[in-house]
Amino acid sequence: MARIPVAILGATGAVGQRFIQLLDGHPWFEVAVITASERSEGRRYGEACRWMLEGEMPSRVRDMILRPSTPEAVDCPLAFSALPSSVPGSVEEELARAGVTVCSNASTHRTDPDVPILIAELNPDHLGLLDVQRRRRGWRGYLVTGPNCTSVPVAVVLRALDRAFGVRHAHVVSLQALSGAGYPGVPSLDILDNVIPFIAAEETKVESEPRKILGRLEGESIALAPFAISAQCNRVQVRDGHLVCLSIGLARRAALSEVTEALRSYRGEIADLDLPSAPQPLVVVREEPDRPQPWRDRDAGGGMAIVVGRVQPCPVNDIKLVALSHNTIRGAAGGLILIAELLRARGLLEAGR
Amino acid sequence: MARIPVAILGATGAVGQRFIQLLDGHPWFEVAVITASERSEGRRYGEACRWMLEGEMPSRVRDMILRPSTPEAVDCPLAFSALPSSVPGSVEEELARAGVTVCSNASTHRTDPDVPILIAELNPDHLGLLDVQRRRRGWRGYLVTGPNCTSVPVAVVLRALDRAFGVRHAHVVSLQALSGAGYPGVPSLDILDNVIPFIAAEETKVESEPRKILGRLEGESIALAPFAISAQCNRVQVRDGHLVCLSIGLARRAALSEVTEALRSYRGEIADLDLPSAPQPLVVVREEPDRPQPWRDRDAGGGMAIVVGRVQPCPVNDIKLVALSHNTIRGAAGGLILIAELLRARGLLEAGR
Amino acid sequence: MARIPVAILGATGAVGQRFIQLLDGHPWFEVAVITASERSEGRRYGEACRWMLEGEMPSRVRDMILRPSTPEAVDCPLAFSALPSSVPGSVEEELARAGVTVCSNASTHRTDPDVPILIAELNPDHLGLLDVQRRRRGWRGYLVTGPNCTSVPVAVVLRALDRAFGVRHAHVVSLQALSGAGYPGVPSLDILDNVIPFIAAEETKVESEPRKILGRLEGESIALAPFAISAQCNRVQVRDGHLVCLSIGLARRAALSEVTEALRSYRGEIADLDLPSAPQPLVVVREEPDRPQPWRDRDAGGGMAIVVGRVQPCPVNDIKLVALSHNTIRGAAGGLILIAELLRARGLLEAGR
Amino acid sequence: MARIPVAILGATGAVGQRFIQLLDGHPWFEVAVITASERSEGRRYGEACRWMLEGEMPSRVRDMILRPSTPEAVDCPLAFSALPSSVPGSVEEELARAGVTVCSNASTHRTDPDVPILIAELNPDHLGLLDVQRRRRGWRGYLVTGPNCTSVPVAVVLRALDRAFGVRHAHVVSLQALSGAGYPGVPSLDILDNVIPFIAAEETKVESEPRKILGRLEGESIALAPFAISAQCNRVQVRDGHLVCLSIGLARRAALSEVTEALRSYRGEIADLDLPSAPQPLVVVREEPDRPQPWRDRDAGGGMAIVVGRVQPCPVNDIKLVALSHNTIRGAAGGLILIAELLRARGLLEAGR
Repeated sequence: MARIPVAILGATGAVGQRFIQLLDGHPWFEVAVITASERSEGRRYGEACRWMLEGEMPSRVRDMILRPSTPEAVDCPLAFSALPSSVPGSVEEELARAGVTVCSNASTHRTDPDVPILIAELNPDHLGLLDVQRRRRGWRGYLVTGPNCTSVPVAVVLRALDRAFGVRHAHVVSLQALSGAGYPGVPSLDILDNVIPFIAAEETKVESEPRKILGRLEGESIALAPFAISAQCNRVQVRDGHLVCLSIGLARRAALSEVTEALRSYRGEIADLDLPSAPQPLVVVREEPDRPQPWRDRDAGGGMAIVVGRVQPCPVNDIKLVALSHNTIRGAAGGLILIAELLRARGLLEAGR
Repeated sequence: MARIPVAILGATGAVGQRFIQLLDGHPWFEVAVITASERSEGRRYGEACRWMLEGEMPSRVRDMILRPSTPEAVDCPLAFSALPSSVPGSVEEELARAGVTVCSNASTHRTDPDVPILIAELNPDHLGLLDVQRRRRGWRGYLVTGPNCTSVPVAVVLRALDRAFGVRHAHVVSLQALSGAGYPGVPSLDILDNVIPFIAAEETKVESEPRKILGRLEGESIALAPFAISAQCNRVQVRDGHLVCLSIGLARRAALSEVTEALRSYRGEIADLDLPSAPQPLVVVREEPDRPQPWRDRDAGGGMAIVVGRVQPCPVNDIKLVALSHNTIRGAAGGLILIAELLRARGLLEAGR
Repeated sequence: MARIPVAILGATGAVGQRFIQLLDGHPWFEVAVITASERSEGRRYGEACRWMLEGEMPSRVRDMILRPSTPEAVDCPLAFSALPSSVPGSVEEELARAGVTVCSNASTHRTDPDVPILIAELNPDHLGLLDVQRRRRGWRGYLVTGPNCTSVPVAVVLRALDRAFGVRHAHVVSLQALSGAGYPGVPSLDILDNVIPFIAAEETKVESEPRKILGRLEGESIALAPFAISAQCNRVQVRDGHLVCLSIGLARRAALSEVTEALRSYRGEIADLDLPSAPQPLVVVREEPDRPQPWRDRDAGGGMAIVVGRVQPCPVNDIKLVALSHNTIRGAAGGLILIAELLRARGLLEAGR
Repeated sequence: MARIPVAILGATGAVGQRFIQLLDGHPWFEVAVITASERSEGRRYGEACRWMLEGEMPSRVRDMILRPSTPEAVDCPLAFSALPSSVPGSVEEELARAGVTVCSNASTHRTDPDVPILIAELNPDHLGLLDVQRRRRGWRGYLVTGPNCTSVPVAVVLRALDRAFGVRHAHVVSLQALSGAGYPGVPSLDILDNVIPFIAAEETKVESEPRKILGRLEGESIALAPFAISAQCNRVQVRDGHLVCLSIGLARRAALSEVTEALRSYRGEIADLDLPSAPQPLVVVREEPDRPQPWRDRDAGGGMAIVVGRVQPCPVNDIKLVALSHNTIRGAAGGLILIAELLRARGLLEAGR
């Protein structure tokens, strides 16, 4: 089977590099086009990119030439966007208009009513919005977004518990990794022997995105999930892996063992599709008293699993627990690749060109 | 005025060293006796102690000889106990029986109904328990404890808000410093590029101690404060300074500006005593979006102030905020020295011998 | 082909775990026996061992029972010893006497005249000492040691340059990783925001071991290589990977390009054996101005390559350069597995039993 | 006595902040003018400056307005320059021409033959160059530079040993702190769990500057000290404090005790002036096997002392030792303030206006 040529928009940044790394040897997709800002255009990837990931830059891309992010240059049915939020959202729109299906990590369009935020296992039915999107916008391609990296473990845990017991509300405190801020990102002098209890615009995202992801597609829009989420976001000195401490109010009482079982057995909606990047299982529940930990657990399921531990009764709400997710794999590049796999499985990649 | 001779029990450990450091040059107290475990008994402090604090070991103590923690060796009206919890609580009891007033950092006796847990500014009236204690136990001295280091910022914030608006419940997530685990404490391989979402027995303390501290002295015991606290405790790679993310339900609605003002203006119950170690103000409210931070704020008020920031409305409870407290100064040695100052101001140190 | 059953002595420690990890799926060897100190004897590995490496503990060993390190319990032709230096060297001697070939990471016997210190690619001819060893000691097995982890990059670089230009002397400053101190090892409070310019007994080893490894087997003993080495060893906050800054006096002048070429082309003495753990190439020379770096380069060649960079003229000696080696793979477990592969290829494993 | 008004050029950067901090309460100097780049000109210091040092920004400067670095704006007899090297050196020249005595931390003019690099205790006689400088350049003020931060401990140790025994050559490996790279400086992702064996242009400075500082003023220029220095510079995860491992060839044999004594007793050339910022002693020799350490020793002598330890015989050269110096105090702002104190004591500040 011929592999589908794909483009990486913003290929030199932290998330762009993860796309390159994860797509190296992917069974369905092949990186055919890489783009960068004007400053790097025309240069070889190996020169323009300061590789920040473990292991070496895949040799395939080393000599590829960076192009602009225009429809002419991005000659592929599928593009993964790692464009920074400073790049105008119209870049992605123009590609979608021209027939490219764009799977975007940028937050720009996440709040558009006709653009779904997808976690492939959780709300594949929200792909129904794409018809609305195409109709309204007159595009030949599609624009699909993945959530903010911290929204991912929150949404997965809440979905599993909501299905089983109903969720009334949730309080989230995150301990987030440095790679979430990109490169150069957080100066070392700011984080050495320190915690920064602030990440710009993050808390708003964590309080709203899971409610859209877990919302119901009603006609031409998503009705937000009806529970409040409160978030306090902190940066800690960890390379990869966002940890979230959750305290959750449930609609009906549940024994700890039931909660653990509900998490452990939650398979999501696409388990039968057996997509290449889908982890098995989606949720790993650890029994040890001191897990999950970023260093030890972030690579579970190839960085695509959600690791949960410390499930306990909460004196204020019903239960509390700790969840971990790899922020640049599951929370960015890996999550979007899985979405693209879902799009292909649903026959939505052939739509455009 | 002659200074009161004091003993430091467990003088070589992390908290013992803070006592030594903070009492160097203290206007009222003078370190006269230092004790250690059998292994170090009879040795010079300068030899037996691996000094772990910034700056040099005070020269005064370098040549003092470590003694056992017995009533015979501890020939002082006042003893600060930094004994590890593995030392039987009876050591402190024997000293108190013999007439020593023991201000203890150990958790052993905190739950005894006739032993107060004091934060000097918050519940000085709980010293009323000491009469009960003496009567029941037939001691000539007293035993007073300070709280767990993470309980301190929680209790101070809740007291200030409870006074102003009433507190219904509180959810706490802590990001705690390495020095809280003593020395050698946390192995570097466990915490490099990592967070540990577990500290043994900590969550139980944080959920219960503030309720005793903020409780009401009724007859011969303390009625716990009637609000639930939920705690999730994490260890992060910070030397000193425990950060807590708080989400608080209030009994009546309060504007953010009222909350901020209530915190900023909270003076505690002993401001008029002008005690040497009492910070002015007790609560520092920072307006910057990214404060408090452990590295930048832990030394506010000589390490005795509570620094609060990020006061925001909470979508789940009423308000959320972040508070910071130096765990080995305010949360241990400094807090207990302030208690001893209060005891002296109240004439309770002369009681014993 | 049936795999050779091997024992891991001291299997629960940091190096013991690396043996377990690296031997998982090894084509020639299979872990059949694991031993630990009396405290852990009889327990399941999965219970007794706090797994400290990236990834999960191999499932194969999880239920294996820890045995004592006695000849009766170690019923294998080959044992890898990760025993701490506090364990008497006689444990290894007894096994060798009983017919086990012991490949040891302990420093205890490295200075014995009839015990070789091997870096498989550098001095396989020193296996000639084993005849002497057996004759003198009347053993049925053998005892072979690997060098101190910091000696490895020093010896490899000096051998490559000595072959090409002659080495007059070398000055070494190391920046060593935390895993070199084992677990619990370095307390986090000692190394946070710090460097420790001291590692017990390390400098002596780095100054002497490479001279034995690069020495000449003359009759029944090794004549030390005739050049002086000076070492200054520092501990830095890095998980894995020892970096050494080398300044080297050469016997004849060499252009930088010659030096680089001599390093890059050095293949060692056993390249034709194509052993499973031998890296290809042995020495990786990086041209970037800021390499090698522990985080980026320690896993080169599966952690078995030596990565060299910053080759420059030295105003005091002839050249200076920086070299990096993974301390628990190439510098411990991996290096010893490669030695065992060499022993098997030479037919020396069949000797004993 | 009225204090001398001084200007801080580049007051918002890392070194600029140290000037502000160290001059707060200085007995002789008072900050009267602060300057910054065009972007910050006209703004209040408290707004434009992200304070990066321990403790709070001195309240005195919070409301001062940032000016340009022009002679008109810098209306002071003395200016401390913390201008980044990207600012043209002509800015400092224009000020000196206009009568300001500029004490500069920039490397731009260090190699000018008529500009001295001063370590106040080591080469105060090099102030003799200032006559030459004024004559040649027709300036009314002067330009004096301080050395690169890593050159400081190297020069001090070599001067003490050269005086006592003669120095033949020295090999230096540095482990340098993050603050040396300014702010934002080193990205946290680059240094977490890592060492960077490269600092741009640093090795050249360390190999040449100490030779100028320790050189002899002969007529109108400095004859470089006649010994070679080799340097290898590394960045490590430490906030402040540069550690250097030195191996030194001496002209005559010296016992370790003599070397230690020569270091300990070296007082420099200006001890009798009793300048406010001069540490007493200049060199602190530690006997413990594991000192100096950045975290423990960088603040010795208020950050102005050089701390030396691990003095040992060197198998290649004569001795090896480890030295530590605070890079932004002794190695930058503090060192230049001490130079200014020397200039005033010598009556050279009155020269200009």
